[in-house]
Amino acid sequence: MPIALPLGFRFAGIHAGIKKYPDKEDLTLIHCPEGAVAAGVYTTNLVFAAPVAFDRERTPSSDIRVVVVNSGNANACTGERGLSDAREMARLAAETVEAKDHQALVMSTGVIGRFLPMEQIAAGVFVAARGLAADEKTFTAAARGILTTDKGVKIASRTLEIGGQEIRLAGMCKGAGMIGPQMATMLGVVVTDAALTPEVAQSALKAAVEDSFNCISVEGHMSTNDTVLLLASGAAGKQPLEGKNLAAFQSALNELCIELAKQIPDDGEGASHLITIDIRGARTKDDARWIARTIADSALVKTAIAGGDPNWGRIVSAAGYAGVPFDPASVDLTVNGFPLYEKGAPVAFDAQTVSAAIKANRETSVVLTLREGTAAIRFWTSDLNVEYVRFNADYTT
Amino acid sequence: MPIALPLGFRFAGIHAGIKKYPDKEDLTLIHCPEGAVAAGVYTTNLVFAAPVAFDRERTPSSDIRVVVVNSGNANACTGERGLSDAREMARLAAETVEAKDHQALVMSTGVIGRFLPMEQIAAGVFVAARGLAADEKTFTAAARGILTTDKGVKIASRTLEIGGQEIRLAGMCKGAGMIGPQMATMLGVVVTDAALTPEVAQSALKAAVEDSFNCISVEGHMSTNDTVLLLASGAAGKQPLEGKNLAAFQSALNELCIELAKQIPDDGEGASHLITIDIRGARTKDDARWIARTIADSALVKTAIAGGDPNWGRIVSAAGYAGVPFDPASVDLTVNGFPLYEKGAPVAFDAQTVSAAIKANRETSVVLTLREGTAAIRFWTSDLNVEYVRFNADYTT
Repeated sequence: MPIALPLGFRFAGIHAGIKKYPDKEDLTLIHCPEGAVAAGVYTTNLVFAAPVAFDRERTPSSDIRVVVVNSGNANACTGERGLSDAREMARLAAETVEAKDHQALVMSTGVIGRFLPMEQIAAGVFVAARGLAADEKTFTAAARGILTTDKGVKIASRTLEIGGQEIRLAGMCKGAGMIGPQMATMLGVVVTDAALTPEVAQSALKAAVEDSFNCISVEGHMSTNDTVLLLASGAAGKQPLEGKNLAAFQSALNELCIELAKQIPDDGEGASHLITIDIRGARTKDDARWIARTIADSALVKTAIAGGDPNWGRIVSAAGYAGVPFDPASVDLTVNGFPLYEKGAPVAFDAQTVSAAIKANRETSVVLTLREGTAAIRFWTSDLNVEYVRFNADYTT
Repeated sequence: MPIALPLGFRFAGIHAGIKKYPDKEDLTLIHCPEGAVAAGVYTTNLVFAAPVAFDRERTPSSDIRVVVVNSGNANACTGERGLSDAREMARLAAETVEAKDHQALVMSTGVIGRFLPMEQIAAGVFVAARGLAADEKTFTAAARGILTTDKGVKIASRTLEIGGQEIRLAGMCKGAGMIGPQMATMLGVVVTDAALTPEVAQSALKAAVEDSFNCISVEGHMSTNDTVLLLASGAAGKQPLEGKNLAAFQSALNELCIELAKQIPDDGEGASHLITIDIRGARTKDDARWIARTIADSALVKTAIAGGDPNWGRIVSAAGYAGVPFDPASVDLTVNGFPLYEKGAPVAFDAQTVSAAIKANRETSVVLTLREGTAAIRFWTSDLNVEYVRFNADYTT
């Protein structure tokens, strides 16, 4: 899959010594030599990490030159020292690319509650800056530098023509555990050479996140570090997009974010199924999202699908405790297209056939239809396997 | 442990053929020949089972003569037919003990979405009624008849002297999975020979449940069938309790319900740790409960404790997304007495020592102290092991 890299950005991903394994990238730089408009959405967790506090104050911005990201350490729950480490990390990145202090953003992901190894960060920023390049190989290395327990890189790109101009978008994200965002996911960056004002960039990103990073979960545990950034260099044309050109951009941004976001539960720790949950006929989109999220986060639903068990009572009962009013006697449910429950009563079905269909496909479709209104949402989650438990029983020790 | 059985009750627990295994009791009768005041608290799930709909209408009551319970089938998500089956089950029980139709209550637990096998229920009620007795052996058989995936019976009793009278309380409950109650747990029955008015019985039960069955979870999935009943025969003295006598009774009821409720997460499916979560210094008790519940339901917290991993960042970050406002910079955390986090910053500790302490003890203590007020709560949950996943991946097929 060739990546169409937006103009105006250079990338680097290197091993700085934060992760234990010397072959794993753990530090990423994204450099915009001419500056970029930047927008951000962040975790709504009360306990938020130092880099989240730092970036939240700086976005939206009309002139960001560098983003520095480390993996292997979240710089979360680290008090005052964590904040000063995040500031210093940003300062180092700015200095290395000859930008001003306030032109840098910073992201961290990894273990909570340990102080950043600042010597490795400083040396790593220096090494990474020397390797900055604008090719697919370095972009991919940069995408690897933000990973933690992920099995592979999560990247996507789009090229579109808007008003005779060719516009490119490219994105990377990470996440495989502690995924239950309620405004953003673990870490994501989308870069584009479109021109956007800071306000438009912020609202475009917020809208795109609503239907993508805000519609996924692995186990529903909201992270301290969730951050998604949008950087727009304007290198493909200086006139900020508006009207139908902006609408076309928004549509491409939405698609790109969905493509990125889905990769997270698909790579959920230990996951053997990517589960797509459609809620239809809800009163509001938020109602639909809460029902979807409650189903997605039920360990009983996730284990049933892991085992190919068409135990639909778990799905319907999870919807019932989402805190959203609906008439349980007017609910239909299908799993992989098989009707299992109609108007509040069970449908006779062959359990072996449905079980075989779940087992034979990596993707499972759950469609729950209410009769309350016309709002709908699509949500993605992973199943829950013994590998998830094994992995998470021994993460820090 | 000898059970002090309250006067005025007879019990039976038999195999009626609802569960597959012929040596497993699956039908329980509790008979109060002279009648009992009855109170009930029920699931707040919108999708509630037929027996919940039935009992909710009948409690509080001044004259219940029989409670019939089946396990192996929840009679939930079964539509109109489920309601008429619950009514018929109650009618059969009343008829068999020569009571009136409206003097019976009914409870069911087991798989969701299947119709009750009414022939087995009818025959079972008949057989059980012939075995009714007031001894420890039949009480224990009755306690077995309400179990599903539980490893063992969950019973407790108390004897106290109130105003020169000897008063007895005895209770049974069940539950090992789909435990995330928000007004009651799966199934529980407390019988007493104290005299209570229906209104006092209802408020006493509600108060006792708040600090017991409403303070536990296994995986946080709220059941369709959660029901706790209190039956008061008045056989130890006809004068309804009030004033300080009632306060003494309430205190014994609270203790009994806590002793019963704790047995549920202690027997959580696959559990190797009973985790006690104390939240202190909260603004309100409900704030404290929500924070405790959010920590208890985090798969990341549960797997960390299963593996003896002192990954305290997962605990603090779970508190942060509970939806309760607090100052993260004023939080302390101890695990098994070891201080790990103080005033929003990490404490240096020896990970191997803390890990060994978690591994060496079946009970794990988590104490999170806020500085928002004086409210506190104690909550119990189980850890999350591979056995939970294995068990729940193949429950109905």
